[in-house]
Amino acid sequence: MFSFFKISRLFYNNIPHKVLHTTKMAKSKFEYVRNFETEDRLLPNCWIVIRIDGRDFHKFSKKHNFKKPNDNRAIDLMNHAAMKVMDDFKDISIAYGQSDEYSFVLRKNTEIYNRRGTKLMTYINSLFSSSYVFYWGEYFKEEKLRYPPAFDSRAVLYPTDENLRDYLSWRQADCHINNLYNTTFWTLINKGGLTNREAEQKLCGTFSSDKNELLFSEFGINYNNEPEIFKKGTILLRKKVLNPKSQKNKTTIIPLHEDLIGDKFWEKHSEILNIGATTFYEYPEDFDLPYLVLRQLNI
Amino acid sequence: MFSFFKISRLFYNNIPHKVLHTTKMAKSKFEYVRNFETEDRLLPNCWIVIRIDGRDFHKFSKKHNFKKPNDNRAIDLMNHAAMKVMDDFKDISIAYGQSDEYSFVLRKNTEIYNRRGTKLMTYINSLFSSSYVFYWGEYFKEEKLRYPPAFDSRAVLYPTDENLRDYLSWRQADCHINNLYNTTFWTLINKGGLTNREAEQKLCGTFSSDKNELLFSEFGINYNNEPEIFKKGTILLRKKVLNPKSQKNKTTIIPLHEDLIGDKFWEKHSEILNIGATTFYEYPEDFDLPYLVLRQLNI
Amino acid sequence: MFSFFKISRLFYNNIPHKVLHTTKMAKSKFEYVRNFETEDRLLPNCWIVIRIDGRDFHKFSKKHNFKKPNDNRAIDLMNHAAMKVMDDFKDISIAYGQSDEYSFVLRKNTEIYNRRGTKLMTYINSLFSSSYVFYWGEYFKEEKLRYPPAFDSRAVLYPTDENLRDYLSWRQADCHINNLYNTTFWTLINKGGLTNREAEQKLCGTFSSDKNELLFSEFGINYNNEPEIFKKGTILLRKKVLNPKSQKNKTTIIPLHEDLIGDKFWEKHSEILNIGATTFYEYPEDFDLPYLVLRQLNI
Amino acid sequence: MFSFFKISRLFYNNIPHKVLHTTKMAKSKFEYVRNFETEDRLLPNCWIVIRIDGRDFHKFSKKHNFKKPNDNRAIDLMNHAAMKVMDDFKDISIAYGQSDEYSFVLRKNTEIYNRRGTKLMTYINSLFSSSYVFYWGEYFKEEKLRYPPAFDSRAVLYPTDENLRDYLSWRQADCHINNLYNTTFWTLINKGGLTNREAEQKLCGTFSSDKNELLFSEFGINYNNEPEIFKKGTILLRKKVLNPKSQKNKTTIIPLHEDLIGDKFWEKHSEILNIGATTFYEYPEDFDLPYLVLRQLNI
Repeated sequence: MFSFFKISRLFYNNIPHKVLHTTKMAKSKFEYVRNFETEDRLLPNCWIVIRIDGRDFHKFSKKHNFKKPNDNRAIDLMNHAAMKVMDDFKDISIAYGQSDEYSFVLRKNTEIYNRRGTKLMTYINSLFSSSYVFYWGEYFKEEKLRYPPAFDSRAVLYPTDENLRDYLSWRQADCHINNLYNTTFWTLINKGGLTNREAEQKLCGTFSSDKNELLFSEFGINYNNEPEIFKKGTILLRKKVLNPKSQKNKTTIIPLHEDLIGDKFWEKHSEILNIGATTFYEYPEDFDLPYLVLRQLNI
Repeated sequence: MFSFFKISRLFYNNIPHKVLHTTKMAKSKFEYVRNFETEDRLLPNCWIVIRIDGRDFHKFSKKHNFKKPNDNRAIDLMNHAAMKVMDDFKDISIAYGQSDEYSFVLRKNTEIYNRRGTKLMTYINSLFSSSYVFYWGEYFKEEKLRYPPAFDSRAVLYPTDENLRDYLSWRQADCHINNLYNTTFWTLINKGGLTNREAEQKLCGTFSSDKNELLFSEFGINYNNEPEIFKKGTILLRKKVLNPKSQKNKTTIIPLHEDLIGDKFWEKHSEILNIGATTFYEYPEDFDLPYLVLRQLNI
Repeated sequence: MFSFFKISRLFYNNIPHKVLHTTKMAKSKFEYVRNFETEDRLLPNCWIVIRIDGRDFHKFSKKHNFKKPNDNRAIDLMNHAAMKVMDDFKDISIAYGQSDEYSFVLRKNTEIYNRRGTKLMTYINSLFSSSYVFYWGEYFKEEKLRYPPAFDSRAVLYPTDENLRDYLSWRQADCHINNLYNTTFWTLINKGGLTNREAEQKLCGTFSSDKNELLFSEFGINYNNEPEIFKKGTILLRKKVLNPKSQKNKTTIIPLHEDLIGDKFWEKHSEILNIGATTFYEYPEDFDLPYLVLRQLNI
Repeated sequence: MFSFFKISRLFYNNIPHKVLHTTKMAKSKFEYVRNFETEDRLLPNCWIVIRIDGRDFHKFSKKHNFKKPNDNRAIDLMNHAAMKVMDDFKDISIAYGQSDEYSFVLRKNTEIYNRRGTKLMTYINSLFSSSYVFYWGEYFKEEKLRYPPAFDSRAVLYPTDENLRDYLSWRQADCHINNLYNTTFWTLINKGGLTNREAEQKLCGTFSSDKNELLFSEFGINYNNEPEIFKKGTILLRKKVLNPKSQKNKTTIIPLHEDLIGDKFWEKHSEILNIGATTFYEYPEDFDLPYLVLRQLNI
């Protein structure tokens, strides 16, 4: 069935004119409705950001017993789904995820799908969504998926490198602010025994420094020592990585959890803005390769 | 984590001005990038059609051993995913599916998501995609899903009832033309022993009547007796249905496989174009309720 | 010069391939910039309204000593410019003007300029603007035009006849409300000796009925007897009219000043919504033909 | 009349709630039609080019006896109308005109009219059109304007300085190619005694070098010595210019006829791309100030 879905279109091209005419007659009465569709080619020479965002993940995370304030299974699953998207769309040069959102950056000179915004938004979103379900069990094990989740998607254009960096900085700053809040909030509840409402009121009007102080003085928690993956979110890059088993290099999508607001990141990974060839990424000697990398290396 | 994703936004509203100012300072440097997003409210008082379409389902159907020319498991799965979408979006009053595509019609006065085209396209597409994976096993049993599929999605506006009907007629006429071709093509291969290429050449330039004749004279197949679900595709409607067990009525999404090109369908289901209340649908006395209906009735 | 402006484009089509290649080389380095232009075809089967609106006509009317509250010269000039537009764009079936604005309705099945919104908006606006200057002297005589005025323009789509009628009703209701206010306001100033501020305060918070009463009781003015052209604005229709001199019929754009909110107008001029052929319009026996009509009949 | 055009809107804000309610009742039934209008804010941080283009100027130039291949009156009038636009829209930093077209470049950070594309396109186009008619007599003297001309207008975005320069280079290269063709074409007719058709055939398939050679060998014309205004078109810049009479500096819009494809122009006028303050422009000692400049200096 599916394999011939578009046969009619191909078919028309090969048949004699008379037949074409006759066959089309049946459909042609209605075919004018195609003219109601619109074009939506995105402006050339701009970075294209496709951002997906979970629909009602407040409820979704409750129903699936996500750990608070951060659930590693959920983060890893998001990263895996995003890796799948990035692996499929070679023109995505960097992706950034936090919480229930992920941003995919298509290089500014991409001509994929003729830059049609709708195609880009919907294919990426669809593949992310189906991947999220497909890989659920790999991360959530016993915790069964109770219903299919949904994500929305949007396309935003950024004309300059600076605009693009500011966009990503905006998302990472958002990650930090939320994580500091959530960490403090859930510490007050889980360790401090406060109710949700009490925790909320205690944090009302506080500065970042207040929260840092509160965590440290009351609970002995140094926020700076919290895992980078929580504080910075996840950056996905396409890099050549040494397969420690085969000792061969393989293009791999690697997760990083570091600052991308400063210049250092962009200097180190200059191929992103320069639209250069994939570069090597050397993991520190005794660094445990992330699961997502091992999986891609088939180790 | 997820449950507090949007806390910063809510949070800002409750905190004293000075704090707001200070907290925002950190992010505000970057926040201007939000102005690069665009609005896309769809014209009011038009029917909104969201059509999703499988990406490279030629390959997908091969990899998953779909039966040719039609695979009931695949059709049922598509219908289930579409039912899920329609159940979630109450403003969808009719949906139509065939092959690897599905069209969802939102009533022309809907104000859901403020008629933002991007939201509608992406949420519906995402939910369809994740449902397709989620319910895969229920229909494909032993046949495991090998990789997450993707669908694209588009929004098209139709100003009048006539335009909308012509749109749906166009899709159903497309279903018919493809199915007649595919049925003949695969009969030539499966029963006639032809190669793909030979079958293609034999059908090249033939009329519908030629194919009907060929099926009958060479293989004793009367195309008219082929299952309606293959010839007409699937129409989904929201109806009140009698639960035979509880003897109570329940609003249910029912699959129909009948002609929607003629007036009869639209007269019978006049609530669609009139934007009326859900009406009853009485199944013939000894009709076996479709699985999709039984499932919704929890029978 | 101008006559060969587009020669290069035509030229390319006629020259041998090699030359084409060479000639294009020079420009082709830059020609990619054309891809940055966008399409903007308007949704088919919708009424297209192009509304133009004067820019800062508060100042413009002061500088040119417009009579308050209504200046017949200004109204007649607006109507003349609009007639010029309607004469040029045959797919405009009705136009409506009041104050410094004019709405042009293109029939819903028009394919002019392939329904490109930008072309329609800008050509109509440009022709209106240049006509306004061109015909200025014919109406304003001694009152010289001091500087070139500007108008903006927008395109709005209306899917149904009802929506279109409501749009025009909205503009005519606006005309009435403004004119009643302005008539009362300027009567208070011109006949009542109030200052602008005093008049404004006196009218603050009044109902329509209050203004009617005030005009009548204080100044003996029955607002209902005010000229229809002020109260209703101007409707332009394309009609066949009898030339009283030649006794021949001629397609003419006629100005009407009557109610278009009720059904009567639309029944009488049913060719507008039905997209029918131009109908006759018979002026009452001893009616003085409007100047705009006489001018088109060359009388 | 005009001065109170928008009174109703202002008015509503000042009146007691009950009255507002009542007054609005009349119009509110129809006012929903405003929701059919769309937003069209242009992407931030991109150069905005508004290009206007004459409608059927082939006919217009014939009817008004334009000299071939170039008519100085027509060029000067175009430049004057463009100067008027540029004087009004302070965010236009450079304009370029040739033949019956003009391009206006708004600096990339402009927020005028909230970057609404429709407003920008239509206001600029309207002001240009009305100015063209308004100043006609100043240049065409005895040659009366026979009918109001029309121009279309479009908005195009360019994300980078390089894209913008390439756009302007494209238009100037177009000017050159057209002018060389037209100069040769009309020389063949006016001096060579050929018919239009013979001239067309003679030029068919020729290179630029062929045309240069033909002009020189057959007519003794060195194309390089043709006036710069014909070969390069007109660049308008906003500069501070010394008024030779008052000996004071005045911000003036000056016409230049020079190469803008090379780097030199952009280095000399670096304030354009840098979005810097208006710089001085010193005319050569014994240079006759252009009429357009004298006129702005009131000399």
